Amino acid sequence: MSGMENSTAGKVITCKAAVAWGPGEPLVMEEILVDPPQKMEVRIKVLFTSICHTDLSAWKGENESQRAYPRIFGHEASGIVESVGEGVRDMKEGDHVIPIFNGECGECLYCKREGTNMCRDYGVNPMKKVMVSDGESRFRTKETRQPIFHFLNTSTFTEFTVVESSCVVKVDPTFPLQKMTLLSCGVSTGVGAAWNTADVKAGSSVAVFGLGAVGLAVAAGARARGASKIIGVDINPAKFAKARALGITECVNPDELETAAHEEITRLTGGGVDYSFECAGSLTALREAFLSTQLGWGLTVLLGVHPGPNMLPLHPMELFAGKQITGSVFGGFKGKTQIPRFAEECMHGAVNLDEFITHELPFEKINEAFQLLKEGKSLRCLMHL
Amino acid sequence: MSGMENSTAGKVITCKAAVAWGPGEPLVMEEILVDPPQKMEVRIKVLFTSICHTDLSAWKGENESQRAYPRIFGHEASGIVESVGEGVRDMKEGDHVIPIFNGECGECLYCKREGTNMCRDYGVNPMKKVMVSDGESRFRTKETRQPIFHFLNTSTFTEFTVVESSCVVKVDPTFPLQKMTLLSCGVSTGVGAAWNTADVKAGSSVAVFGLGAVGLAVAAGARARGASKIIGVDINPAKFAKARALGITECVNPDELETAAHEEITRLTGGGVDYSFECAGSLTALREAFLSTQLGWGLTVLLGVHPGPNMLPLHPMELFAGKQITGSVFGGFKGKTQIPRFAEECMHGAVNLDEFITHELPFEKINEAFQLLKEGKSLRCLMHL
Ligand SMILES: NC(=O)c1ccc[n+]([C@@H]2O[C@H](COP(=O)([O-])OP(=O)(O)OC[C@H]3O[C@@H](n4cnc5c(N)ncnc54)[C@H](O)[C@@H]3O)[C@@H](O)[C@H]2O)c1
Ligand SMILES: NC(=O)c1ccc[n+]([C@@H]2O[C@H](COP(=O)([O-])OP(=O)(O)OC[C@H]3O[C@@H](n4cnc5c(N)ncnc54)[C@H](O)[C@@H]3O)[C@@H](O)[C@H]2O)c1
Ligand SMILES: [Zn+2]
Ligand SMILES: [Zn+2]
Ligand SMILES: [Zn+2]
Ligand SMILES: [Zn+2]
Repeated sequence: MSGMENSTAGKVITCKAAVAWGPGEPLVMEEILVDPPQKMEVRIKVLFTSICHTDLSAWKGENESQRAYPRIFGHEASGIVESVGEGVRDMKEGDHVIPIFNGECGECLYCKREGTNMCRDYGVNPMKKVMVSDGESRFRTKETRQPIFHFLNTSTFTEFTVVESSCVVKVDPTFPLQKMTLLSCGVSTGVGAAWNTADVKAGSSVAVFGLGAVGLAVAAGARARGASKIIGVDINPAKFAKARALGITECVNPDELETAAHEEITRLTGGGVDYSFECAGSLTALREAFLSTQLGWGLTVLLGVHPGPNMLPLHPMELFAGKQITGSVFGGFKGKTQIPRFAEECMHGAVNLDEFITHELPFEKINEAFQLLKEGKSLRCLMHL
Repeated sequence: MSGMENSTAGKVITCKAAVAWGPGEPLVMEEILVDPPQKMEVRIKVLFTSICHTDLSAWKGENESQRAYPRIFGHEASGIVESVGEGVRDMKEGDHVIPIFNGECGECLYCKREGTNMCRDYGVNPMKKVMVSDGESRFRTKETRQPIFHFLNTSTFTEFTVVESSCVVKVDPTFPLQKMTLLSCGVSTGVGAAWNTADVKAGSSVAVFGLGAVGLAVAAGARARGASKIIGVDINPAKFAKARALGITECVNPDELETAAHEEITRLTGGGVDYSFECAGSLTALREAFLSTQLGWGLTVLLGVHPGPNMLPLHPMELFAGKQITGSVFGGFKGKTQIPRFAEECMHGAVNLDEFITHELPFEKINEAFQLLKEGKSLRCLMHL
């Protein structure tokens, strides 16, 4: 255990958390116990958290095999290190940090290799619900001491959380934590998909399916790279005003078309886009995204989370038209080594982070924040803890 | 019409062809009439032709929407230009040529772009059955003058064929045409998939599913690039001896395993191959090929032809493990501009073409040659016309 520099280090902390007790049931704001961080773990005082569609899907329990209750959801956040466990050298009490759901241990096969942001033990894993070191949870209910499961390496809907140090990124303390929250998932995922996974070229054309925070971050990333046409597709036209502010040049609402979305996009681009991004979590959108790309070289990047046993809605022969498809997790960023620099670029204006925060609420109103996202009213609602 | 340099130029030629009259029915060796080449077309005296699995599938009529009879199949061949139509400048009577089923016009969007070998009007198209210029066939039966459909831009099971000049490649007349025949499809497709589509790196690991001519050409291409492990997978163990001669370092027969093929390959490579190639035309093989690749960067290249309405047997989320999938047609070679150089490389020993010719038969015995391929006994049976 590293030091006793503050009054809580090494001790169990009692604090408030929003606990999920069953699929789709309102989160319960209750007191929980948070154990001290073990070896190579970090306990974080969460200051801001927001809700990503991945939380929404998990909360609804869309994928039955991933259900586990009680659980603390949340993976997009920012905060301050309260204390660190044994062996943690790169962070200390008081550091400004963001958790990352796709960690970087720096040691494994994947971490040591360029061109992938997988990590053997700390990569994104929807089945993981306890800590790697001892297979235990660091959360218990105050009342019955029942263990509460972790979520997506992070669990941020709580005043204090314990995260493996591979899943924590230190950020410059002069950068406002409110904005840094967005780099914890949505904005890094979208911008990184455009920059790292697709490597969008200046003058190219792009289609973005799903204009939530992830899709609009793709748009912002594509605009920063100089894409000349960035077509946004959403079945919710309320998304279009903000979409234009973030770089979308044309908006397409499939429900208002006589033809399929890909036909409209083919028309708008005279043959199809160079890159398309599926950020809707919809198989229909995925197929349309693929069909919207240019024959010969079009690249489709899958970002949406698709629960259930469905297969890719593509015929094998459709790959013969010179099209490629790939997935992107956390925008292809190696979190610990690349996000600090990305944060700097954002602060220098590469991406306007403020545009993504459409609502702010106190943590207590988290169920309202869920509703906002569910109803398509928010991009990100920043909750203050 | 260009000149009358020989006695047949400009005239209808009567010759023998192997005509398909219905799905799976034995080809009928009969006299047909072959019209002179029209504008930008070439009439070729076919000297050698072989059978590729794509002919076998089309002959069986596996894809109902592509059925059309009577038809002249065949797309792997070599021969000599008998005469050329108006406007053909890059070839003349007497030139040694090979037809290519995936043409290169040199003028279209795709031909002008690097990194794709698509061609707008002359790319591979299993639905095409007549000439582009006038929508007519150049073949008729001698008896009733009924038009006979073309196949895959080429139709080589005939003593004379007419092909659009975009689909004809001139080869060095000092190179033996027997060997050049293989560059018309199988060997170019396999080697090119390793060189152009996957860009196999020295020291890397490769899995090849399906050890026919296409799969073994992938192996030969990977070996030429210095791949250190080339695992061959086939349900027909009779393929393994030849496979070893062409570069396969380990052979796997799924039917003899207790586990799935991808588990065995993961074991053999300690994590999966860098590249896998599906050359079997089987969805099972495609899924196994994908699962055999290394998490983080594994690339699956689809070469097999998959008829029917089946979808890709992959879950969208399986793409999140940093794996990519793409298709490869004619090995990604731009036929007219790149095959002459490839032919030279082969003649200098990059690939041992002789190994692919396992049988030779007179053209009259074409139905026997079909049986050899169907029963998995031949790689390529070279037919002499
Ligand atoms: N790959 C990753 O690393 C990663 C990271 C974060 C989020 N995600 C996933 O990305 C997706 C988007 O996340 P978000 O937080 O931006 O969600 P969001 O709910 O804010 O936005 C999704 C948008 O898609 C639209 N949409 C739904 N169906 C559509 C359809 N058929 N066609 C067009 N638009 C449609 C919705 O109207 C909405 O505007 C989710 O599936 C989420 O789970 C993936
Ligand atoms: N993409 C292209 O440009 C292109 C060009 C030529 C051929 N092709 C296709 O490539 C494929 C191979 O052609 P070929 O001429 O080498 O065929 P082939 O018949 O000579 O070889 C196919 C091999 O696959 C094996 N096989 C079948 N099912 C299998 C399974 N489930 N697992 C492992 N092995 C299996 C067979 O035993 C056989 O040895 C065919 O589908 C053909 O249509 C594609
Ligand atoms: Zn997220
Ligand atoms: Zn790692
Ligand atoms: Zn072929
Ligand atoms: Zn062309």
